Amino acid sequence: MRVLVVNPNSSASMTALIGECARASVGPGVVVDAIDPGAGPVSLESHYDEAIAVPHLLGVLEREGAAYDGFVIACFGDPGLHAAREILTGPVVGIAEAAMRTAAYLSRRFSVVTTLPRVIAHTWSIARDYGVADLVGGVHACRIPVVDLETDPEAYATILAACRRALAEDGSEAIVLGCAGMADLCARLSKELEVPVVDGVAAATAEVEKLVRLGLSTSKHDGYAAPPAKEIRVLR
Amino acid sequence: MRVLVVNPNSSASMTALIGECARASVGPGVVVDAIDPGAGPVSLESHYDEAIAVPHLLGVLEREGAAYDGFVIACFGDPGLHAAREILTGPVVGIAEAAMRTAAYLSRRFSVVTTLPRVIAHTWSIARDYGVADLVGGVHACRIPVVDLETDPEAYATILAACRRALAEDGSEAIVLGCAGMADLCARLSKELEVPVVDGVAAATAEVEKLVRLGLSTSKHDGYAAPPAKEIRVLR
Amino acid sequence: MRVLVVNPNSSASMTALIGECARASVGPGVVVDAIDPGAGPVSLESHYDEAIAVPHLLGVLEREGAAYDGFVIACFGDPGLHAAREILTGPVVGIAEAAMRTAAYLSRRFSVVTTLPRVIAHTWSIARDYGVADLVGGVHACRIPVVDLETDPEAYATILAACRRALAEDGSEAIVLGCAGMADLCARLSKELEVPVVDGVAAATAEVEKLVRLGLSTSKHDGYAAPPAKEIRVLR
Amino acid sequence: MRVLVVNPNSSASMTALIGECARASVGPGVVVDAIDPGAGPVSLESHYDEAIAVPHLLGVLEREGAAYDGFVIACFGDPGLHAAREILTGPVVGIAEAAMRTAAYLSRRFSVVTTLPRVIAHTWSIARDYGVADLVGGVHACRIPVVDLETDPEAYATILAACRRALAEDGSEAIVLGCAGMADLCARLSKELEVPVVDGVAAATAEVEKLVRLGLSTSKHDGYAAPPAKEIRVLR
Amino acid sequence: MRVLVVNPNSSASMTALIGECARASVGPGVVVDAIDPGAGPVSLESHYDEAIAVPHLLGVLEREGAAYDGFVIACFGDPGLHAAREILTGPVVGIAEAAMRTAAYLSRRFSVVTTLPRVIAHTWSIARDYGVADLVGGVHACRIPVVDLETDPEAYATILAACRRALAEDGSEAIVLGCAGMADLCARLSKELEVPVVDGVAAATAEVEKLVRLGLSTSKHDGYAAPPAKEIRVLR
Amino acid sequence: MRVLVVNPNSSASMTALIGECARASVGPGVVVDAIDPGAGPVSLESHYDEAIAVPHLLGVLEREGAAYDGFVIACFGDPGLHAAREILTGPVVGIAEAAMRTAAYLSRRFSVVTTLPRVIAHTWSIARDYGVADLVGGVHACRIPVVDLETDPEAYATILAACRRALAEDGSEAIVLGCAGMADLCARLSKELEVPVVDGVAAATAEVEKLVRLGLSTSKHDGYAAPPAKEIRVLR
Repeated sequence: MRVLVVNPNSSASMTALIGECARASVGPGVVVDAIDPGAGPVSLESHYDEAIAVPHLLGVLEREGAAYDGFVIACFGDPGLHAAREILTGPVVGIAEAAMRTAAYLSRRFSVVTTLPRVIAHTWSIARDYGVADLVGGVHACRIPVVDLETDPEAYATILAACRRALAEDGSEAIVLGCAGMADLCARLSKELEVPVVDGVAAATAEVEKLVRLGLSTSKHDGYAAPPAKEIRVLR
Repeated sequence: MRVLVVNPNSSASMTALIGECARASVGPGVVVDAIDPGAGPVSLESHYDEAIAVPHLLGVLEREGAAYDGFVIACFGDPGLHAAREILTGPVVGIAEAAMRTAAYLSRRFSVVTTLPRVIAHTWSIARDYGVADLVGGVHACRIPVVDLETDPEAYATILAACRRALAEDGSEAIVLGCAGMADLCARLSKELEVPVVDGVAAATAEVEKLVRLGLSTSKHDGYAAPPAKEIRVLR
Repeated sequence: MRVLVVNPNSSASMTALIGECARASVGPGVVVDAIDPGAGPVSLESHYDEAIAVPHLLGVLEREGAAYDGFVIACFGDPGLHAAREILTGPVVGIAEAAMRTAAYLSRRFSVVTTLPRVIAHTWSIARDYGVADLVGGVHACRIPVVDLETDPEAYATILAACRRALAEDGSEAIVLGCAGMADLCARLSKELEVPVVDGVAAATAEVEKLVRLGLSTSKHDGYAAPPAKEIRVLR
Repeated sequence: MRVLVVNPNSSASMTALIGECARASVGPGVVVDAIDPGAGPVSLESHYDEAIAVPHLLGVLEREGAAYDGFVIACFGDPGLHAAREILTGPVVGIAEAAMRTAAYLSRRFSVVTTLPRVIAHTWSIARDYGVADLVGGVHACRIPVVDLETDPEAYATILAACRRALAEDGSEAIVLGCAGMADLCARLSKELEVPVVDGVAAATAEVEKLVRLGLSTSKHDGYAAPPAKEIRVLR
Repeated sequence: MRVLVVNPNSSASMTALIGECARASVGPGVVVDAIDPGAGPVSLESHYDEAIAVPHLLGVLEREGAAYDGFVIACFGDPGLHAAREILTGPVVGIAEAAMRTAAYLSRRFSVVTTLPRVIAHTWSIARDYGVADLVGGVHACRIPVVDLETDPEAYATILAACRRALAEDGSEAIVLGCAGMADLCARLSKELEVPVVDGVAAATAEVEKLVRLGLSTSKHDGYAAPPAKEIRVLR
Repeated sequence: MRVLVVNPNSSASMTALIGECARASVGPGVVVDAIDPGAGPVSLESHYDEAIAVPHLLGVLEREGAAYDGFVIACFGDPGLHAAREILTGPVVGIAEAAMRTAAYLSRRFSVVTTLPRVIAHTWSIARDYGVADLVGGVHACRIPVVDLETDPEAYATILAACRRALAEDGSEAIVLGCAGMADLCARLSKELEVPVVDGVAAATAEVEKLVRLGLSTSKHDGYAAPPAKEIRVLR
């Protein structure tokens, strides 16, 4: 089985980190490749960033898709998820949906710890879309920009503090990490907090492995059918 | 006051039709320009189409935005709406949100008549996002592709039949037209059906006029703040 | 176009204030008259007050309705809204629904600042009815009775403080003013708070102008059909 | 214990019928009086009818309230319920809330059978307000005006047919009668349909008896506190 | 009329207390017996406790059911409620559903005060199931284990403090007691707090009396039909 | 890794079938054992059946739990799920939650095909609990008792017909099988229907494998903490 994990931003170091975490989440016989489009925003922290990144993401999937059995979109907003399902035959899983649904197997109430305050209201909106809003105790921002997650020496301590605050204030029983760039902190946080901490990169990659092994893929009836063929004009 | 209505697909004839309907919806002293990116899919009937079209749409808004007071995104899925709000200072309204919220002022239950069956489940999802799902009696597809709306001689009769079916089956009291390409049929349908028929192009343009006159625009605190400045890599 | 704004309480000074704000919200060619029943409670701060006021409100609408194209009910609980829609042919908009739906075009989360704590739970109930409860970050009472809004020299400062508290505690991005008597403070609050502040009087009046221009009015099919003719007994 | 059941319309024959059904629902030692305002619409079939009737209803409650321990509002829309709770110290129960909450103790899904199609959407809205919408399988109109319920010789057969249709189409397990004027048909329908049929008049009266015996009454903290004292202007 | 109140735990002293409170809640001519299975956990504070207790509870109901007209399950999680409805012909009411629906007749927002923090998230889940979650201001744990409610000399003061905190923090207008073991404190708390305090034992017993008097019982159509007859294997 | 799949009914042939399907769903290195309690109802088709079966199920888990890394409860109502999470340290997944959440990765709308009409309303209730009710197009009963699934020669054809009806009537894009006893039909149905058909036994087993590999297990903070130690009385 071959799984392609696409980091939709253009940060090669984050792609490497994501690849490592994704590979650690699968069973024997599963090949995981991590890739990014090599173009577009270096991090996705706004709807604008996502909008610019998505065609690059879809381009990667169109180019590479035939060689893989399943796909992960490794950015917590799940950008391009619906479109990717339309153009691919293998299953596609976003890390936000995977993280939040996984947490629902583990706890009665969980909190999301994310990067910037600007995404808090949107994270609640995503949680409603995925049907887990009743389980979300709160969404907390650690106020670290995505690109600083790798370099800020205080990043781990700041995120840990945000997790502790979330558990205490929200009465939550588990944590969902709201950014692919936090994937490598998951085990350490979980050990220190003594509650489940769910990283979406691992959760989504393992979910794709699960779906492929079960022979399940996106329904091609109506909602995710291949896009109707049509003229696409190119600017000269 | 100057309002820019962007048709995110690349069909010049639909842009003309949209412009006409938008201009008919505003008061004296309001200049309405309708534009399309001149690139991208000729119609938007899938998430893929939307994803490809949105950067072109945002490009138009970035280029032309400074000359306008408010903006309409004239495609029923409201593609790029959140991103547009981030990059502009004037208010931005999508035709789906405007049509559905407008219908909520007019009736206790309304139905949406759209183009293809593939968008039905997504239309329900949009209705939930906009808080009007409890008012939606049903979503009905007339099974006419967007580009055929202008040329199919049976289009009006088929849509009328879908509206009648919706009113009867759903117990609905009003109709929302689920495609910008149906904008010009609105008055005729309303007259024949004897219930309010809401076209989103008119509803959104008039909504923008309303917001601009009231001095209201997108909050720049958190959710729709300008995107963080960052490197955007370009493929060579 | 002629729009009638009815203040359902019997405070002539508030009617004057409402009329001023309403007139400032419309475009050229729109005549706005503000009126009150001249009878009933001097302010509406309870369901009892509303119940007593509504027949007077409906009496005004029955008497004056034929001369107007659209109607605003200028009290934040939207008293008599459904009944007014039944007896009139022009569109009718309440200031609570208009303010909350307008805020939904401007922000991902907004807070309502109202007068007395006794209306907080009911305001949440209204927000659910109008489908915006998921967007409401909180409802805050400034603890100023309606009739004191015009005379209390501390009113503006107290309301400003309540708005600041709401934005900080709720993580909100915009404010909805929960009383027609606050209409004249809207621009000043917005300037000082640097977020959109929505006054329902302006929002509803502009919404009526929008609906009338679009040729849209209340559906007369089922839910808002004219009341069945019947005997109404009068006590002698 | 003394319970006052108020029929908010002005039909003396319906008041008599309601009184009979209410008295049959209480235990020994409970005195039930049924009354109507003697003024206002002869039946309530619209929001307008309700709005006109409510001040008369509240007048009766203000005049007679001191002599009773608890109160029933005997019209399925529960008109004036919130206001009545504000002005009375004893508990107040509406027949719609009582019928629907009672049905929730008896079945996983129930249908409402009401009079006219015009109230269907509003009945759904009430069900959402009372938190039972997920249990409602459907709302069905028998198309008999309220005043004809007593005189139409086909009324019983027509309602029975509507109930049968509701059970079959909705997969429901119980019926809620959506009009006080159907109260006397309840037992007969239940016997013939072999499922629970809930009449709100009986359910609400017994609920009031229950609340009074338990020493429970409306909270006077915030939401239902007595209305603030204020000037009420009277037209001369 | 004979009502059986079953305490599903095996604490005879709690059964006695429950019986006393239940008997105080009914009218003349109603015989109330309180019983416990004499086996199973001495208190129910986990899903495990409930699971172990329920077959004992059902055994009591099967053995004693024929002699009674209606039934109360006197534990706040309403364990075994659906199953009990299947095997009995008389109505069955749980104390959690009865307490929460009763509070909905009395206030716009109420808080639940329960025993241990571990049940908070589940209490919210129950509130959603019963359709009252929108009315719940908060769920507060007094941190007293069930068996200590009778013996801890600080129990009353601790619960009173939790109620005061709930009213203040949640903006609530009434209290629901989240444990059958608090039933005897209800009147005293209500007097001191000056808001309605609802005990589920009293509420459920009076509800059963109400249902029986109204001739209403569980629908035997589909959802609560008698369990299909089948082989039940016994371990030797 | 060792996964224990417990069939909570006492049908050895169904346990064998479940074991086969579960084993087919895991990757290399995962040992799956299927077991049943050998006692209790031969099939679970009512809440009563579930209540009687659950202590047997929990007994198996207590006895065998230490030897396994994760657990599946293989009955579509997910009986005993919360209790099992309390007493075990490894993750526990129910087949209903797994099937419905898995379907949410594959389609915009799915239908559930179950055995008997009596479980339809409860299945909707489960779907609401799991946050997927908005995605459920309908719940359809094939009217085959659980024990007949293995022996009825028409079972496959009847279920296939129910699936076709569900897809057509509900506008659904995928099917969830609502009974563990249908597990072996999944692949054949999927092939014939040309949409994803999700069997909960496979979905849950693969989900457990996923969770164990990710090092994730039930939070022991609050909601699923080990049950408080206490006296459990045994009848002599």
